[in-house]
Amino acid sequence: MRTSIDCIPCFMRQTLEAVRMVTDERAVHEEVIRKVLNATASMDFTLSPPQMGQTIHRLICEASGEKDPYYEIKKRYNHLALDLYPELKKYVDSSSDRFETSVRLAIAGNIIDFGVTGKLSENSIHTSIRESLAQPLNKRAVEVLRDSIEVAKNILYIGDNAGEIVFDRILIEEMPIEKVTFAVRGFPIINDATKEDAEETGLSSLVEVIDNGSDVPGTVLKECSQEFRNYFAQSDFIITKGQGNYETLSEECKNISYLFKAKCPVIAKESGCNVGAMVILHKRCA
Amino acid sequence: MRTSIDCIPCFMRQTLEAVRMVTDERAVHEEVIRKVLNATASMDFTLSPPQMGQTIHRLICEASGEKDPYYEIKKRYNHLALDLYPELKKYVDSSSDRFETSVRLAIAGNIIDFGVTGKLSENSIHTSIRESLAQPLNKRAVEVLRDSIEVAKNILYIGDNAGEIVFDRILIEEMPIEKVTFAVRGFPIINDATKEDAEETGLSSLVEVIDNGSDVPGTVLKECSQEFRNYFAQSDFIITKGQGNYETLSEECKNISYLFKAKCPVIAKESGCNVGAMVILHKRCA
Repeated sequence: MRTSIDCIPCFMRQTLEAVRMVTDERAVHEEVIRKVLNATASMDFTLSPPQMGQTIHRLICEASGEKDPYYEIKKRYNHLALDLYPELKKYVDSSSDRFETSVRLAIAGNIIDFGVTGKLSENSIHTSIRESLAQPLNKRAVEVLRDSIEVAKNILYIGDNAGEIVFDRILIEEMPIEKVTFAVRGFPIINDATKEDAEETGLSSLVEVIDNGSDVPGTVLKECSQEFRNYFAQSDFIITKGQGNYETLSEECKNISYLFKAKCPVIAKESGCNVGAMVILHKRCA
Repeated sequence: MRTSIDCIPCFMRQTLEAVRMVTDERAVHEEVIRKVLNATASMDFTLSPPQMGQTIHRLICEASGEKDPYYEIKKRYNHLALDLYPELKKYVDSSSDRFETSVRLAIAGNIIDFGVTGKLSENSIHTSIRESLAQPLNKRAVEVLRDSIEVAKNILYIGDNAGEIVFDRILIEEMPIEKVTFAVRGFPIINDATKEDAEETGLSSLVEVIDNGSDVPGTVLKECSQEFRNYFAQSDFIITKGQGNYETLSEECKNISYLFKAKCPVIAKESGCNVGAMVILHKRCA
């Protein structure tokens, strides 16, 4: 998906939020925002928004000397989600359709995204969970997802953020885990999950976890490792979480189901829903 | 007032809203936003935000060939406000304090601002009027304003937007009009009032109207005509309307009262109030 010029105000806001999280030095804030303005001025808008996300966060790391500015945040949200795990499990256990409930929860967890907004309260996670259980969800899309998982021989599940991956674990536990490989980012980028987060949240003891060798907050195949590309090519079904994976993989000719919360107007318009909606989109390619 | 880096996302949003108002050509939208990104990247942040407003709108006019993109909007809001004039007058006539009510209404009219948001509904003007009559207002600041008007020998009233100037007329009609000179912008800029708007709304028949010779959406003295600067220097009391005039004149050593609605977080913080508040600030300089 190409970058809309409507993403530009958001790039700027994201930059300010992220650089302030890393340092209080005003000179660094100004240096970074000027560099991001320059980079955006000459950006190839046929690239996807996460590729500018990568540029922004590389510039912040360079200017501040911080390699993983969201490290503490990732830890905090992993622990917070692990604390919620028993409650999430109860929702699944007490529901009439375990699979649908776990899909709802996996999408609810996508609220833990520091790329879209730097301001996330722990309260908003509880709200997201509550809403996800009550909000309308495309039932037909859930059935397509259920069937695709059933017939697939091997499934690549591409995660998104730290903390959120505990919610993914809830869904994966309702899937035939022997078929599932879970993928995380290769290097720290915003609060996206890396191998360390997969270990911390128990994903690594459940299924095989690989990293994609890249620091894009999404999945740009040509920037990924050969190993990851092989997994991607060999999987007959792929589930991706989050806007970033959708934005970078929406044009790939593969059987992909995209699960996310629509968190901005550009994505909401692109996927034909309202901001805040729970989205399941399927792409099927022979 | 210097530009905050928090103004940058807003510059981008304003650019997109304004350029889309002028043309549907996507190539022009992209050309303009890239130029604004470049201009902002190298901007001197000690300059005030309206100076970037000037740059943005010059770039839009250049790229689109339109000299006065908000011409129709200005006409529409002048007429709309003139239609409201009898109702506004009734509020003043039926109030226990005509002056305070007219101050409230003058500030209410400051909602008609296409610089801060491109989306203004006629409804929001009615809401702004209703709220202005009920909202808390610094009574002490109203008294200072009343006294300053009384003791002043000559008053320069620097207006802001088309349509809004009908609300200013309501206030000026409660002032000793023989002392008042009303100032508008020298050239079209966003929906700021020019001489044509002052004539259309009856201001010119009430008081002397001068223009400032500039196309900044505020008052940058060194960009104004010598004639305007003389008026400014010779006035012993100045009333300014709107954020743009505050942002550009807040550091001048003159007796100035700034009346505006706080429409963005940067200004709200600067003037110690909440977004949406009605603000009266006084600067007194010997």
